[in-house]
Amino acid sequence: MNLKLTLEYDGTDFCGWQEQMGQRSVQGTVAEALARLTGQNIKLHGAGRTDAGVHALGQVANCVVKTQIPPEKFAKALNPLLPPDVKVLTSEVVAEEWHARFSARGKLYSYHLLLSDRPRPLLRHRALRVGASFDLDKVEQAISLFLGRHDFAPFSAKGSSVKSTVRTITQAELLRQGEHCQLLFAADGFLYHMVRMMVGELVAVALGSVTPEEVAATLATAERRRPPLTAPPQGLYLVEVRY
Amino acid sequence: MNLKLTLEYDGTDFCGWQEQMGQRSVQGTVAEALARLTGQNIKLHGAGRTDAGVHALGQVANCVVKTQIPPEKFAKALNPLLPPDVKVLTSEVVAEEWHARFSARGKLYSYHLLLSDRPRPLLRHRALRVGASFDLDKVEQAISLFLGRHDFAPFSAKGSSVKSTVRTITQAELLRQGEHCQLLFAADGFLYHMVRMMVGELVAVALGSVTPEEVAATLATAERRRPPLTAPPQGLYLVEVRY
Repeated sequence: MNLKLTLEYDGTDFCGWQEQMGQRSVQGTVAEALARLTGQNIKLHGAGRTDAGVHALGQVANCVVKTQIPPEKFAKALNPLLPPDVKVLTSEVVAEEWHARFSARGKLYSYHLLLSDRPRPLLRHRALRVGASFDLDKVEQAISLFLGRHDFAPFSAKGSSVKSTVRTITQAELLRQGEHCQLLFAADGFLYHMVRMMVGELVAVALGSVTPEEVAATLATAERRRPPLTAPPQGLYLVEVRY
Repeated sequence: MNLKLTLEYDGTDFCGWQEQMGQRSVQGTVAEALARLTGQNIKLHGAGRTDAGVHALGQVANCVVKTQIPPEKFAKALNPLLPPDVKVLTSEVVAEEWHARFSARGKLYSYHLLLSDRPRPLLRHRALRVGASFDLDKVEQAISLFLGRHDFAPFSAKGSSVKSTVRTITQAELLRQGEHCQLLFAADGFLYHMVRMMVGELVAVALGSVTPEEVAATLATAERRRPPLTAPPQGLYLVEVRY
């Protein structure tokens, strides 16, 4: 049967989603547990590749397995074979042609900022720390510029081969909770490093080194005059994949 | 000068506050950084000993140092010499006789519960997971039983030599935030494992294995008929030391 798995992981100690020889990947770790549980060599398809240090609250993957375990109990059977930093939240059977990546209609990411003038050990792997006087109002004004359909080529890193760099952002929102703040981005798809580069741009706006007009111009022309900032991975969370 | 340091740490990879031969303690780690910064062999006095795995948002310590660094800049000078999982939030000069432990008038602890039926990797070192149907109402009713002046001997582990086991709890409160929940306890002082054993008792109440009447009787008589539950360390945070 074709199984859909929803996963949570702490990205800190993984080299990222994608299997890499000699490194500890999420994909490889879960595939290994699947092999131990079923005795089969199982190919696991993820909805998207998260980088090293990026977390997931709802990564989705699918795999074809032969098993007597009822699909909804598969998560419970697999979890004891997984290390503490990655677990399966839910498992369900899906149609044969269903694919975690190709069937996805969109994704939701969250980027966490911590407004603090002091290093904060408990959040060192969980958020990007900016100063307490960081100008969130500027971020709030600029974040909506990303909404809609744009060519996001200037907000993507080289190294991925995609047919089109046009994406539609359906949600771009700032949530404030005291010194904690989340930047939420939902889209029909994201390019490589796209969220981290949008966050980098918003940080530059808040610091005054880029104006909202420049952001708008970059989005309108799909050309970039300045080298981009890329926010570090530890603040990024893949919240949800939408089907 | 006598320096008061306020510290945050992630307790996961420490053997606890107290220096222990051959182990990685918070006290030893900070003392080592102090020695590197000042060239002096410095004795660090903590407000209290947190166990392995227990976190601190505001542990307090003091030490006598000879230094040209202005006291309020001392934190900034020390932090680069500290590992990422412990940092000094603030530093200030205090009176010669001031002592982090003996001058303390009270402490505030928080214990984090996660109400989820699934293992949650991102919170594995940060909260105690209980089921989604965990009965918080029972906890809310029972937690106020701890308020006031009681002999907390039944809520302390052996191994500490204190003159009196009587303490006064000034705050005992449940905060609910969806699946996240905090149990807050403020007192003039806490015995060894006292918060973890109070939380263990409240968990037993929620599960129905102990009645609120039994909790009240245990507090009234300072005698215990059942072996106590001790909640695990990873949910516990030393929030604040009061002077």
